[in-house]
Amino acid sequence: MPSVGEKSAFRMALHLLEQENDAPLRLANALIKAKENIVRCEICNAFCEGVSDRRICEICANPSRDNSVICVVERPSDMLAIEKNRRFNGVYHVLGGLISPISGITPDKLSLNLMKKRVENGEVKEIIIALGFTGEAETTIFYIQRILSGFNLTISKLAQGLSSGLEIIHADKNTLIQAIDDRKIICRGALANHAQ
Amino acid sequence: MPSVGEKSAFRMALHLLEQENDAPLRLANALIKAKENIVRCEICNAFCEGVSDRRICEICANPSRDNSVICVVERPSDMLAIEKNRRFNGVYHVLGGLISPISGITPDKLSLNLMKKRVENGEVKEIIIALGFTGEAETTIFYIQRILSGFNLTISKLAQGLSSGLEIIHADKNTLIQAIDDRKIICRGALANHAQ
Repeated sequence: MPSVGEKSAFRMALHLLEQENDAPLRLANALIKAKENIVRCEICNAFCEGVSDRRICEICANPSRDNSVICVVERPSDMLAIEKNRRFNGVYHVLGGLISPISGITPDKLSLNLMKKRVENGEVKEIIIALGFTGEAETTIFYIQRILSGFNLTISKLAQGLSSGLEIIHADKNTLIQAIDDRKIICRGALANHAQ
Repeated sequence: MPSVGEKSAFRMALHLLEQENDAPLRLANALIKAKENIVRCEICNAFCEGVSDRRICEICANPSRDNSVICVVERPSDMLAIEKNRRFNGVYHVLGGLISPISGITPDKLSLNLMKKRVENGEVKEIIIALGFTGEAETTIFYIQRILSGFNLTISKLAQGLSSGLEIIHADKNTLIQAIDDRKIICRGALANHAQ
């Protein structure tokens, strides 16, 4: 499991076994219940509680969210990270991974067809691809761009550049190159404005 | 001195004193010579060797550099970091710090007048403000924008967003908000292009 090494796992296992009470059984039951009740949202592939007949997550079911802007993320945890900021009012689409032929993750292993279907329904105006600044993310962005090229929508990706708190001297080569290439124009001079 | 704590400083001092040879004297002489010969470039305020009559750094003296694009940095070390990438072909301007009223660094302590003079000479088309993603940098950017507002040039700042290698789950709140706000449009759909 993420961030649990061999030693930690061993310590956790012993801790559970040493309990006099029914802690291990309660954990086991919680896991079974979670596995039974937490399903994937039919629309966006995020986690949701499969209580009703149709399995739709809270965000997709919320009528005040803007269905015309879809933020495409790798995992449900990324969605939660963006939700925490309470700024984005669109909806999400969870890919379930990134394309990585070396690790055997081909495009068909991701929920790309589900995403394409949402776009085909016609309501979508913008796809914001919110993947990290990594090689696999770039491959996935390129693929998404290709399969959605025929549709009448805007595709954007997250800005790449200096992260909050980062000083130039600590920025790595790729970040610095990207930050200069993608520099943001904050003002055009009086005459330049006049010419426009 | 940066990244030298009390213990390291003590160890370095002892190391120098324990030398049988003239290492301490050579270091002392090197320091004196550096202080004498390394001066500030009259044009950009970067370091340069004050060998000639006019004190101009290698970059400002290089006729193949594009004088119409000035990259404004905080310190000479930032300039070296950007130079290392061998991508930027403009020239630089070293501010010598960032505006920080709390630390007593007011605008007059920086080489802002020198920068304004360069702009007044008329050759400059773009000022790229290459400062970090920090509060003091933002204050300084705002001030530069104000003092250059009357000139016919483009002012840009470095892109802010995900740094190279950063995954969404590890991005802090400010970075994530900026990355979404400044998202980069990579493609507009067929019909959208048609409408333009």
